[in-house]
Amino acid sequence: MKPMGPIPAWFASEEGMLLIGGCGAASLIDEAGDTPLFVYDMGIVEAQVRRFRDAMPKAVDLHYAIKANPYAPLLTRMAGQVDGFDIASGGELAMALEAGMAPDRISFAGPGKRDDELEAAIFAGVTLNLESEGEGRRALAIADRIGKTPRLAVRVNPDFDLKGSGMRMGGGAKPFGVDADRAAALARAVIAGGADWRGWHIFAGSQNLDAMAIIETQAATMALAARLSDEVGASPPLVNLGGGFGLAYFPGDEPLDIRPIGVALGTALEERADILRDSRFALELGRWLVGEAGVYLTRVIDVKISQGETFVVVDGGLHHQLAASGNFGTVVRRNYPIAVANRFGALPADPVTVVGCLCTPLDRLGDRVALPQVQEGDLVAVFLAGAYGASASPAAFLGHPSPRQLLLG
Amino acid sequence: MKPMGPIPAWFASEEGMLLIGGCGAASLIDEAGDTPLFVYDMGIVEAQVRRFRDAMPKAVDLHYAIKANPYAPLLTRMAGQVDGFDIASGGELAMALEAGMAPDRISFAGPGKRDDELEAAIFAGVTLNLESEGEGRRALAIADRIGKTPRLAVRVNPDFDLKGSGMRMGGGAKPFGVDADRAAALARAVIAGGADWRGWHIFAGSQNLDAMAIIETQAATMALAARLSDEVGASPPLVNLGGGFGLAYFPGDEPLDIRPIGVALGTALEERADILRDSRFALELGRWLVGEAGVYLTRVIDVKISQGETFVVVDGGLHHQLAASGNFGTVVRRNYPIAVANRFGALPADPVTVVGCLCTPLDRLGDRVALPQVQEGDLVAVFLAGAYGASASPAAFLGHPSPRQLLLG
Repeated sequence: MKPMGPIPAWFASEEGMLLIGGCGAASLIDEAGDTPLFVYDMGIVEAQVRRFRDAMPKAVDLHYAIKANPYAPLLTRMAGQVDGFDIASGGELAMALEAGMAPDRISFAGPGKRDDELEAAIFAGVTLNLESEGEGRRALAIADRIGKTPRLAVRVNPDFDLKGSGMRMGGGAKPFGVDADRAAALARAVIAGGADWRGWHIFAGSQNLDAMAIIETQAATMALAARLSDEVGASPPLVNLGGGFGLAYFPGDEPLDIRPIGVALGTALEERADILRDSRFALELGRWLVGEAGVYLTRVIDVKISQGETFVVVDGGLHHQLAASGNFGTVVRRNYPIAVANRFGALPADPVTVVGCLCTPLDRLGDRVALPQVQEGDLVAVFLAGAYGASASPAAFLGHPSPRQLLLG
Repeated sequence: MKPMGPIPAWFASEEGMLLIGGCGAASLIDEAGDTPLFVYDMGIVEAQVRRFRDAMPKAVDLHYAIKANPYAPLLTRMAGQVDGFDIASGGELAMALEAGMAPDRISFAGPGKRDDELEAAIFAGVTLNLESEGEGRRALAIADRIGKTPRLAVRVNPDFDLKGSGMRMGGGAKPFGVDADRAAALARAVIAGGADWRGWHIFAGSQNLDAMAIIETQAATMALAARLSDEVGASPPLVNLGGGFGLAYFPGDEPLDIRPIGVALGTALEERADILRDSRFALELGRWLVGEAGVYLTRVIDVKISQGETFVVVDGGLHHQLAASGNFGTVVRRNYPIAVANRFGALPADPVTVVGCLCTPLDRLGDRVALPQVQEGDLVAVFLAGAYGASASPAAFLGHPSPRQLLLG
């Protein structure tokens, strides 16, 4: 038997049926029409937003990185919950505007912005987080051509990283942002070029469960923003401090307690350098806001035995859940939390391996996991499916239909 | 500097411009309208088909596993080139029929076939490769209900594997097929149930570059098919011997020479057991037929330096080329062969890292590779993009447009 990650604490059951947003999993599938189905509980998202607001200082805005989950009904609801959207493509720009977010609360980062994307963003009036001097030149030229004042922030590749992150995005040679020692010069250049300079974007890492590491990184980020602003000789309207709040996906992961982060950030803000006195600050979160709100429901098609091992074959798979299959950004495959949704909380029987319907050995959703007795027609729930699931998986692979999605609450 | 895989021998250049199917890469992009672009050269596919026909015994059919590349214009052409299509979903069934392949030359494998997929397949008259006893029961019941005689083969989980394969699909507990010691009983059951028994499907592994290992596995597969057929007491109309022919993707990979495989298979066929005397045989290939025929073309958006390292940022990325980014079925990331298409064959300058446009550190197409001097607007070609590229990548991730595709020849 191999362990699995912890089932998020939000979920309970009624008469053995997993409840999501107060509704039984089976009736949600009836409502959606079929499996595989992603269900997102807006109640959990809103609870995470409240948790953020309760813990963080008032001067810290909450941005949603929509790449985590751009499902349109969810985005529309998020627009009313957070202070800004962070986007990463022209396509996401269109989604963010469609969701009703005001352009001046949208920021666009990403190392390979094409000219047509820069133009659409400048035209719409969203902030571009510049990733290089070259991008700055292109943005100024496009703005000049279309006669708009561009809103430009500078993304900084910090000279430190967020230790223990799932993804490191600073502390070394990186494709993101400009190195800290060139950031002030770029800010001065865009100011001189007539842009509306919006400040700094400093993102050191993501998916971190170590509050102390996040606190240290935020302090270093504040200090870096102050130093760079002094070099520029101007106060940044906004300092995007990055994100980094992680979720517990795997065995042994302890959920992150953000309250000490809020306390430390409050102190750091009180003691901040004068040049940052009138700045606003933002944290940019994706996964942490929506990840636990999602459950992927898939039906058991077959239960079969091969050489003494039991395989549970479901109608979903890595085409919808690439990360859970262990094929996206992980070196060693570990088990996401999964459960039998219609026998939630029942005692586990012998370990089984849960595989998706794709005809490839990569399609594995649970490796020798302890589940209750499973049979054909049962429902398997994969948790932590709210972020980087439906939109971050190879949906067309092997020609299966797109998954259904349902937003509750 | 890190090495990259070998550029397939098909490709040459004219005045420094990479030629694909005799056309310059830049003019192909003009024709398609924009980058990122997948170009597939049907001439290379046809050359691979000829290579197969020349090397293999006449009694061996060539099947195309359409999951490798289901691009509709390519499928239509493939229908005229090969003896059968192997499919893995109801969606692929529709594609195969649309491409003009006769239903009695289509086989459907896959561990999680839903009832609606079984019904569509039986109705259309394609062969189902049964993956379990339970699937056999479901297929017989559906056939009975709709009044059709189902064409049923039995997929066998062999008691050996194909050594050195990129993906092992036999030799241990597996979700694919039924264990060899239960396969004859399942064949007898479907015959007794009134089905048209089509024979055996025995697939031991894929992406293999070791001709000796493939020869040994084919011999073992022939022996297993004979033994199982004796147990059934009936000659199988078709024995699908699996696939396994690999391509050289990575540094140090030597291309597979299939000629000794054909010689050995010829001998094995001559010496085959009496019960297989009237059987046909098939090899099921996907990647080997189409992989080298594809080139992914993407344009350089930015060239930037971070801490002394040069990053080339392109407008494509892992959303189209998941496997090349090292995030699909590989533990250690290695470099696919890539080149600057408009400076093909020029001397390499200092190593650069080629990253995609996605705002994630996972999006890396070339890690410290030796390329000629690169600048904004240049074209980067990623080779071996014909299989498991466009259809096997998370195309919706970060909201970029779908890649363009173009079939030549």
